Amino acid sequence: MKLSDQKQQFKNYLKEIDYYREALSLIHWDMRTKIPTKGVEQRSEVAGFLGEKIHQLQTSKQMEAYIKELKPNTDDSILLRTIEVCEEEYERNKKIPHKLYKDFMITQTKSEAIWQQAKENDDFHLFRPYLKKLVDFNREFASYWGYENNIYDALLHKFEPGITVNELDHVFPKLRSSLRSTLEKVQTSAVKPDPSIIQVHFPKQQQVAFTEQLLKQMGYDFTSGRLDETVHPFAIPLNQNDVRLTTRYNENDFRMAVFGTIHEGGHGLYEQNIDPRLARTPLATGASMGIHESQSLFWENFIARSYPFWEKNYDLFLQYAPHSFQNVDLEQFYQTINEVKPSFIRIEADELTYPLHIMIRYELEKALINEEIIVDDLPHLWNEKMNNYLGITPPTDREGVLQDIHWAGGDFGYFPSYALGYMYAAQIYHTLSKDLPVESLIRTGDLTPIKSWLAKSIHQYGKLKEPLEILTDVTNETLNPDYLVQHLEKKFKAIYQF
Amino acid sequence: MKLSDQKQQFKNYLKEIDYYREALSLIHWDMRTKIPTKGVEQRSEVAGFLGEKIHQLQTSKQMEAYIKELKPNTDDSILLRTIEVCEEEYERNKKIPHKLYKDFMITQTKSEAIWQQAKENDDFHLFRPYLKKLVDFNREFASYWGYENNIYDALLHKFEPGITVNELDHVFPKLRSSLRSTLEKVQTSAVKPDPSIIQVHFPKQQQVAFTEQLLKQMGYDFTSGRLDETVHPFAIPLNQNDVRLTTRYNENDFRMAVFGTIHEGGHGLYEQNIDPRLARTPLATGASMGIHESQSLFWENFIARSYPFWEKNYDLFLQYAPHSFQNVDLEQFYQTINEVKPSFIRIEADELTYPLHIMIRYELEKALINEEIIVDDLPHLWNEKMNNYLGITPPTDREGVLQDIHWAGGDFGYFPSYALGYMYAAQIYHTLSKDLPVESLIRTGDLTPIKSWLAKSIHQYGKLKEPLEILTDVTNETLNPDYLVQHLEKKFKAIYQF
Repeated sequence: MKLSDQKQQFKNYLKEIDYYREALSLIHWDMRTKIPTKGVEQRSEVAGFLGEKIHQLQTSKQMEAYIKELKPNTDDSILLRTIEVCEEEYERNKKIPHKLYKDFMITQTKSEAIWQQAKENDDFHLFRPYLKKLVDFNREFASYWGYENNIYDALLHKFEPGITVNELDHVFPKLRSSLRSTLEKVQTSAVKPDPSIIQVHFPKQQQVAFTEQLLKQMGYDFTSGRLDETVHPFAIPLNQNDVRLTTRYNENDFRMAVFGTIHEGGHGLYEQNIDPRLARTPLATGASMGIHESQSLFWENFIARSYPFWEKNYDLFLQYAPHSFQNVDLEQFYQTINEVKPSFIRIEADELTYPLHIMIRYELEKALINEEIIVDDLPHLWNEKMNNYLGITPPTDREGVLQDIHWAGGDFGYFPSYALGYMYAAQIYHTLSKDLPVESLIRTGDLTPIKSWLAKSIHQYGKLKEPLEILTDVTNETLNPDYLVQHLEKKFKAIYQF
Repeated sequence: MKLSDQKQQFKNYLKEIDYYREALSLIHWDMRTKIPTKGVEQRSEVAGFLGEKIHQLQTSKQMEAYIKELKPNTDDSILLRTIEVCEEEYERNKKIPHKLYKDFMITQTKSEAIWQQAKENDDFHLFRPYLKKLVDFNREFASYWGYENNIYDALLHKFEPGITVNELDHVFPKLRSSLRSTLEKVQTSAVKPDPSIIQVHFPKQQQVAFTEQLLKQMGYDFTSGRLDETVHPFAIPLNQNDVRLTTRYNENDFRMAVFGTIHEGGHGLYEQNIDPRLARTPLATGASMGIHESQSLFWENFIARSYPFWEKNYDLFLQYAPHSFQNVDLEQFYQTINEVKPSFIRIEADELTYPLHIMIRYELEKALINEEIIVDDLPHLWNEKMNNYLGITPPTDREGVLQDIHWAGGDFGYFPSYALGYMYAAQIYHTLSKDLPVESLIRTGDLTPIKSWLAKSIHQYGKLKEPLEILTDVTNETLNPDYLVQHLEKKFKAIYQF
């Protein structure tokens, strides 16, 4: 067969995978936003079927042949990188014996249901045997995948290629000691924002209307996306022109919807601005979990929680907000939305303490995978670390070790990306402010140059570059926690006047 | 291979087809209710891909082998009927040369877009060449499929097996002459309902809340379904436990949403009550287009437009309706929702004139397929027939021959089902009233026995029976237009006092 024909066939093969992916994504979106309760069971079968199809195509003999034959014969950079990404997926999946993978899938599905029950009943013992199995599966996968220094590196690699335990154990302590010192200053400060002044009834429909305004300001395109309600907010790209966001509303605390939506909007902007030439290839998505998170945290923490943002938007906010906000001035408002207060639940944590939650989880899962601790010790160790880092002890496991679904889904090595994304975001923001008068742009409400800068520097590439390649291309240095440290110190010093 | 193994394999094969069908149905639902405008193009590719997969599986050598080997070797009635339905689909598709089918699909897709334009611009000439092609395709398909008496029978068979031109040309004239005579009496009556008394602003959210109440009364299960807004209302089963309805709202005429939703609710109830043993087989849907329509029209016209229904629900209605309805008494209300007035658009037609719209379309498409008329004559002939049957002439083709999408979708032989469904519904209602005190049940609001009777007599069977088999099993006679004639005469005599 002519090489050009084979390339075309390969592209069609990838299209087919992507058609399944798009259909499956719609099912996932629907299952989390719209599906009637009794429809779930049969829909799950369909999801399983489509997932299996994708897996088959990714690991087929045919895929192996395409990789082998096309990789040495192309100088098209997009095609080459596409092949590399396919190859990585192929190798990763091929290394796992089929029976092991199937057992894992079954355990994972069961575990998620059991975790849900365990969380509801605050009963870690119920979840414990499943978690043990999932740790063992992950250890086994890691040993099949291979690693150089630390078995946990094999898991990290899946979510954030280029990042290792070595790297994390270098940056996290620096970040931690600074966070803890800032936290101490915050806690001893005489400034005590009073959240009750903004915890007033704010009708959902008004919150929806206001957050849609903010998404539009960011440049999120509603002709290529939509916003729906869900229990656990997420962003999901069906295709590049249909990138959906979800959020949740607390009628007594608008911060949940406003900052949650902007966070998902950051993910959404990323997916909406990937180069259309990458469509229907595995490159048409974010570079990594961490780079993705950098975009959501960029918009949430560096733009939407900034003072200039509310200088611009507070009047607009007051148009939608209940009358009681008229008594809250901009300074008080800004202080309150940035209140620092150690709390149990990661996804409700403030900007300063958030990374500490991630470190706790990272340390525990690294130790588990390295067999330095056992699952039975988790509740106790979790609470101990919470107390050490945040000075509070969860009263229940539901608010402690059982809070997140990720372990039940079998995902280990995933959490560090949340903190990495945060550090990336600070580093990117720092570079951006050298290129653009970012604060004054925010103050005037013209966010377009910021959006365009991100699209040009990051979004357009999709998975065409590795995560650390994107970071260094944009910021001219490798991962550096100092920017986040400086950002937080400066911000909270001003707010808490220490 | 052991026969039992082969049966199991066949069932798995059907499951696979059904997984694709369910995913595709979700895509269709989404495309008509939720998708952002720019997402359509790429999603259409996915729909095409999944549709092609289904078609391949339905017409494969493997399917042929299953039919051949299993059909003579089963005494399981469900399995046997499943094989028959697969065989019919297989034969129908196999008879059409692949190239012809592909050309048809391309023409059909283009035609739908062109029809949209033609309708918008009121320009039949734009649509004419496509319509010509679609008529030719249908003639060609019909000659491949074969027929005994009339070429149009081959097309009818696809939607309403058992019904022929012979049958229709026997029942339609009887129905028509009665409808026209009743219409004349209505038009010369001194009673003139004034629709302006109910055409008052009725906020959408209130309409949603009220119609949901009515759906619940009917027994539509919201844990196995949902209701959304759309431009063209429809009901769509994703699976039996996720049967979705859509409706549209006119804030100045609540009748559109209330009766439209109940109509779709009738379709929905049917799908929700199919025997679960038929799940994941091609039997798990309505027996035919006509039987399906009988269920929607049963609820819309025989229940929801009846006097007892509003004796029960008028107080509830007033709770949701704007204050101005307080001046409308139940008698006036009942009269007005049943106003008879010839109008141009089929889907907005009243209960009495609706079948006349169907007959016009039937006569024209039968003549087209039989080459007794040509496409060029359609606008003229349409208007002539409208004038003959309904006494009004559409001022534009947009309100005339261009009003429906069906022809643009390549569907000929489909429209008679609408009128058949109406006659079936009347016949079924007649039988039901011998079994149950139906009017008093409606008056007290206890619709459960009615729902159960329909589920037991019709819904549970899905496609296990042929349409006319269902009709005769339920009513002990074959298609008989007299019940509809009697129903309409009696009803409008009472309302219009002639």
